[in-house]
Amino acid sequence: MNREDVYRHQNFGNPSGIGSRCALVLVDFVNGFVDPDQFGGSHIEQAVHASVPLLDAFRVARLPIVHTRVVYSDDGSDANVFCMKVPGLLRLTEDAPMSQIVPQLTPRAGERVLRKTSASAFFSTGLAQWLAFRGVDTVVVAGCTTSGCIRATVVDSMQSNFRTVVVSDCVGDRALEPHHANLFDMRQKYADVLGRDELLALLSAKR
Amino acid sequence: MNREDVYRHQNFGNPSGIGSRCALVLVDFVNGFVDPDQFGGSHIEQAVHASVPLLDAFRVARLPIVHTRVVYSDDGSDANVFCMKVPGLLRLTEDAPMSQIVPQLTPRAGERVLRKTSASAFFSTGLAQWLAFRGVDTVVVAGCTTSGCIRATVVDSMQSNFRTVVVSDCVGDRALEPHHANLFDMRQKYADVLGRDELLALLSAKR
Amino acid sequence: MNREDVYRHQNFGNPSGIGSRCALVLVDFVNGFVDPDQFGGSHIEQAVHASVPLLDAFRVARLPIVHTRVVYSDDGSDANVFCMKVPGLLRLTEDAPMSQIVPQLTPRAGERVLRKTSASAFFSTGLAQWLAFRGVDTVVVAGCTTSGCIRATVVDSMQSNFRTVVVSDCVGDRALEPHHANLFDMRQKYADVLGRDELLALLSAKR
Amino acid sequence: MNREDVYRHQNFGNPSGIGSRCALVLVDFVNGFVDPDQFGGSHIEQAVHASVPLLDAFRVARLPIVHTRVVYSDDGSDANVFCMKVPGLLRLTEDAPMSQIVPQLTPRAGERVLRKTSASAFFSTGLAQWLAFRGVDTVVVAGCTTSGCIRATVVDSMQSNFRTVVVSDCVGDRALEPHHANLFDMRQKYADVLGRDELLALLSAKR
Repeated sequence: MNREDVYRHQNFGNPSGIGSRCALVLVDFVNGFVDPDQFGGSHIEQAVHASVPLLDAFRVARLPIVHTRVVYSDDGSDANVFCMKVPGLLRLTEDAPMSQIVPQLTPRAGERVLRKTSASAFFSTGLAQWLAFRGVDTVVVAGCTTSGCIRATVVDSMQSNFRTVVVSDCVGDRALEPHHANLFDMRQKYADVLGRDELLALLSAKR
Repeated sequence: MNREDVYRHQNFGNPSGIGSRCALVLVDFVNGFVDPDQFGGSHIEQAVHASVPLLDAFRVARLPIVHTRVVYSDDGSDANVFCMKVPGLLRLTEDAPMSQIVPQLTPRAGERVLRKTSASAFFSTGLAQWLAFRGVDTVVVAGCTTSGCIRATVVDSMQSNFRTVVVSDCVGDRALEPHHANLFDMRQKYADVLGRDELLALLSAKR
Repeated sequence: MNREDVYRHQNFGNPSGIGSRCALVLVDFVNGFVDPDQFGGSHIEQAVHASVPLLDAFRVARLPIVHTRVVYSDDGSDANVFCMKVPGLLRLTEDAPMSQIVPQLTPRAGERVLRKTSASAFFSTGLAQWLAFRGVDTVVVAGCTTSGCIRATVVDSMQSNFRTVVVSDCVGDRALEPHHANLFDMRQKYADVLGRDELLALLSAKR
Repeated sequence: MNREDVYRHQNFGNPSGIGSRCALVLVDFVNGFVDPDQFGGSHIEQAVHASVPLLDAFRVARLPIVHTRVVYSDDGSDANVFCMKVPGLLRLTEDAPMSQIVPQLTPRAGERVLRKTSASAFFSTGLAQWLAFRGVDTVVVAGCTTSGCIRATVVDSMQSNFRTVVVSDCVGDRALEPHHANLFDMRQKYADVLGRDELLALLSAKR
């Protein structure tokens, strides 16, 4: 049996669907993750472009919007095991140009900007409680990288009991193989994987 | 550039190493995850066999040992989004044969048996605090599946600031591609990936 | 200024109110917490009696219901700092008579029974996610003790962003002074404190 | 039986003691919590003064030091249930004078400054993992208010499995009754309550 067959045989990959209220979580769309000499590359730039209409749609619908940034303190006092594996993360400080959100997706007042020092947007950030307080039952995830902070965020979103959607053309990675491998894993076990226009059509049908 | 080169260029994949006190976490080595008609298959059986000497070594060294099981309540009162994606999980109840730990790795008194309803062994289980209280700074992970509960556990172990080791021949999956893809991701970003004998040699050198 | 005046002057004690969907959390109403020779005493027995109609009302309204028990493993493998302060807790094992829920409040199928080893019903138990998945925005708390697991649960409920109500005649303590002191603190900062009949009237008005 | 007798009869109030490595957590010693027209009053000013030599001792011993501040975002995008009970909290923004740490206790480079929007310094802040990574097994708590953020922090410190010490003359409150009532509760169930000089003597004896 091939990979798809094995999962089908064991009844994985069912949809969790879309509930009554969605939020958009844009993960780590910052300058350093677009630049191939920092943490970026490949098709992340395209994912940024594809996310502009996605963000617009959530703004028009007045749904909750969250942007995340990786931010370590200037004095390194919050260094952690993640920095042992990837030492360059410590350069992502509050004012460093590479840790600023890309200009195309600049947050507006009222949108939540979450600073994090881990992979998951949920880990020790209070995001789950923030979403629950706003009546959210479905989390739509875009950003980068698919095999890194997107995957970690999606697993935690599901574990926090939000129906979760990964927008396939609005997530990007520094290399293509891990991108595709992680989309497969997430679709089978944790989230629905939808194209941007497919998701936007579903959202307008709901209104 | 190929995948490896991209990650090397950005200085990923550094070792986090082994600290002063290790614990062993055996994830979901239960009957249902060995059986290809339930949730198992491929080389998970081999991973069980390879883990017997690993468990012995931790017992001899009197280091903390944790076994996890997926256990849902008989009345389904703890159903969650995970069960929407994979409905069969709800059959893993306290007394179901398929949710019992495999006979080769039966827990002994004093070893912690953690019940969980999520992918990660750390999520809402108190595992991080249990390990910290026992002076652990390094978590050694074996079990199944590599692309599922192992990956989720490893990410959370790193996020909880434990140096983390995945034992490559003691983790198994229901299909080979996701197994290898996830070992790659974990080695680059979250954990050291070591063969069992390599790890055991490091552990005895420490004593 | 007296205590009340100080808090009024600083604008504490505003109501958080009742939202659109309530859940009932009955904390540690087990045999050992009614018995003054174990962990109980004073007016806890009265709080049990007062809680019977409260539980009935939630059953009739088909709202989510949670019962918590303190349960440590038989082999003591989950001992923690709490047991250093209060060693007797380790006797509250799965089958010990004193850790069984009192007969007047026996859980029914579909009601969640949470085992915990900490003070708060939320700490490392997944309760917040369970409630969020069921659309709950308001947590009604009864049980014992007011100055112990009730207070810890109420603080975490508020921190998890649930509007929180303490039912004043359905919470009890082993001594009266801490009971009253903690009701004061909770009303000022974390929760609304309502009598049972006042709460039930509010709930029926909502339907 | 009086309150003390009841707790003694049930074997509460045992010491959890001091382990091998302490950290100091100074909770919310900011201008607004010293000012009786904001959130302060009573003996909080004294607690600040008493904490200066405590902080010095931890600096000399090169032990980990954490300062917390309550900080809400300027646009109110992180408002929560806590602000429904105490609306004035939303004025504690990043640059507001009242949310700055008092001049006597200004943090130095390498000391962790934690921003929080909840009562507990541990809730959704990553503090437990930060401490564990630094080998800490004992948390020493000072700050304000005893019946608010100190109590919430102490409960979570214990639940996170750190031996916990409250420094009785280095914690303050806006009114005296809640201060004493909460010291009683914490001593019985969650922490050791020691005077500053008693603690400092124990620390030097350890070195």
